[in-house]
Amino acid sequence: MPDRIYNFAAGPAALPLSVLEEAQSEFTNINDSGMSLLEMSHRSQPVESIMSEAESDIREVGNIPENYHILFLQGGASQQFSMVPMNLLSSDGHAEHIVTGHFAKLAYQDAQKIGDIHLAASTEEDKFSRIPTADEYKLDPAADYVHITTNNTIFGTEWKTIPKTGDVPLVADTSSNMFSKPIDIQDYGLIYAGAQKNLGAAGVTLVIIREDLLKRSPDILPSMFNYNQHVKSKSAYNTPPVFGIYILGLVIKWLKGQGGLKNMDRINTQKASLIYDVIDSTDFYRGHATKSDRSNMNVTFNLPTSDLEAKFADSAASHGMVEIKGHRSVGGIRASIYNAFPIEGVERLTDFMKAFEKSHG
Amino acid sequence: MPDRIYNFAAGPAALPLSVLEEAQSEFTNINDSGMSLLEMSHRSQPVESIMSEAESDIREVGNIPENYHILFLQGGASQQFSMVPMNLLSSDGHAEHIVTGHFAKLAYQDAQKIGDIHLAASTEEDKFSRIPTADEYKLDPAADYVHITTNNTIFGTEWKTIPKTGDVPLVADTSSNMFSKPIDIQDYGLIYAGAQKNLGAAGVTLVIIREDLLKRSPDILPSMFNYNQHVKSKSAYNTPPVFGIYILGLVIKWLKGQGGLKNMDRINTQKASLIYDVIDSTDFYRGHATKSDRSNMNVTFNLPTSDLEAKFADSAASHGMVEIKGHRSVGGIRASIYNAFPIEGVERLTDFMKAFEKSHG
Repeated sequence: MPDRIYNFAAGPAALPLSVLEEAQSEFTNINDSGMSLLEMSHRSQPVESIMSEAESDIREVGNIPENYHILFLQGGASQQFSMVPMNLLSSDGHAEHIVTGHFAKLAYQDAQKIGDIHLAASTEEDKFSRIPTADEYKLDPAADYVHITTNNTIFGTEWKTIPKTGDVPLVADTSSNMFSKPIDIQDYGLIYAGAQKNLGAAGVTLVIIREDLLKRSPDILPSMFNYNQHVKSKSAYNTPPVFGIYILGLVIKWLKGQGGLKNMDRINTQKASLIYDVIDSTDFYRGHATKSDRSNMNVTFNLPTSDLEAKFADSAASHGMVEIKGHRSVGGIRASIYNAFPIEGVERLTDFMKAFEKSHG
Repeated sequence: MPDRIYNFAAGPAALPLSVLEEAQSEFTNINDSGMSLLEMSHRSQPVESIMSEAESDIREVGNIPENYHILFLQGGASQQFSMVPMNLLSSDGHAEHIVTGHFAKLAYQDAQKIGDIHLAASTEEDKFSRIPTADEYKLDPAADYVHITTNNTIFGTEWKTIPKTGDVPLVADTSSNMFSKPIDIQDYGLIYAGAQKNLGAAGVTLVIIREDLLKRSPDILPSMFNYNQHVKSKSAYNTPPVFGIYILGLVIKWLKGQGGLKNMDRINTQKASLIYDVIDSTDFYRGHATKSDRSNMNVTFNLPTSDLEAKFADSAASHGMVEIKGHRSVGGIRASIYNAFPIEGVERLTDFMKAFEKSHG
């Protein structure tokens, strides 16, 4: 095995090597404290600094104004599937979900266990190969909120223009394209993202919530499920996942070093285009997603047969490119190329795709 | 600052240096995979091995039979305060809580938000300086379960003999003395422990649940809050906190190397006795906990004045012993000496205590 492999995993996924090396160098003794960050009290000044610095870097990179609160929670995006309705749904209200993939569907199903959730639109009939167009759904202006999933990891689709919801807060699971491009937070009431795709390691979930929504959290909610409580406690109602927040902070600093979200978007578009161009140049590879809805994060495609797909994945691995198989639920090939995935790895893949077609096409 | 400091923090707390060094050495490239564990898919064979090895080592160290399931969850013990009643409370049933400290009280309060919870006993009137005796509470044989907190971090008390609950499952928050001594899991229906005291780093919670209790989890529970779902998914319903589970696994291996729980108990008793002996040899130091209920994990005591306590903590820090202040809610001094805290640090503390008394007594 090489020192460093090209890891196309969909999450947990590749991280910037410089981030890993920095964390390694101070792993047993951070800031000359004589202890590891793993051993450090969450009420200590160094940990509070790490958390507040991560927050202010997120504000800077994402241009997040003060009327939005930034939380570092646990339980992944999956826990947010429940926490969103627990907090934002009024006792006699309802919310609307647009279902564009596997996790969008889970979010819809879990939310139904909490309250009245309507299905505004779904593209499941089309194997989630596309995002619905605006004329396919009619959003109820009386809904408590509208929920979308901005990028669909398994199917490789991405919202290019988000729904206009007027005064109804838009809630989004942004796990798989968070900070891959500029985001106007003012379009949203709440967004949440598991860190293990674009932001860091598994075990921490970024939640950004608009101030006025906090008053919706019912007092009867247990503290751990209450956004208002987490805001009051600055994400330290109980012991937060300190190491995960630290890694996330390092990733955001790295992102600043990359020139911020505009430049990241430019790089990500370039990376994805390299692969889509190969797909579009032949009938050997067939993209799963409708062209206009293609994701810059997860490129999904098929080969003529599933045997060839298995051979492709195996052969890619022997060329230093791993975890490129499609999700077990859909098969095919999926190249996940989040922010930290280097363009050199994409170029190696496109070279490999061309060579593989030549020898097997 | 020295290379390695004596860290008396109550959690996150000191970890074995050998564990930290091993994690550091393979931090950017684990098992010659060419990637960091932080980047590795939770569905990959190496991660599944790490998780199943952690589980089997826990079974071995704790002598946990097959009719108990081992889960690695998120959200800390605090999330279990809600999940226990969400899963174990029947719709018309009730549970009984014995409240012996700050976290025991939070568990009681949060559970009340879920269902009918009775207070079987509390020692709050005595400033939680003791554990109630068996004649102070009468447990209802019709209760769905009884909840206790086996060690009270802030007050420095510990259950020496747990309540006999007959056919009623005993549920315990064992966060602050988990695996500090032998445990007979068959005394319990369910135990849970945040890892950041005796088991590893913040961000993973160990839950051990008896098979027959799984059928209590209501289908209407969202997946992330459903023990039965987590058992079915082998703690990987969604992305688990992989790195935290890995550290926990290394700590359990270290524990095996220490000779297991019996030997750990012997060492922990020896460590705690060294400090309690100093406390008992003078009136300058006054232990907070009733002698018979003293914790081997958290030794709490007072000096004649709070000024002297502040001076003691500051001076200890300048002698390489940090985080020895009592919890902000009670003041005084607290020396947390979990499994990984070395006896050399305890000896340095007792030497310091004697010298401090000489110069300030």
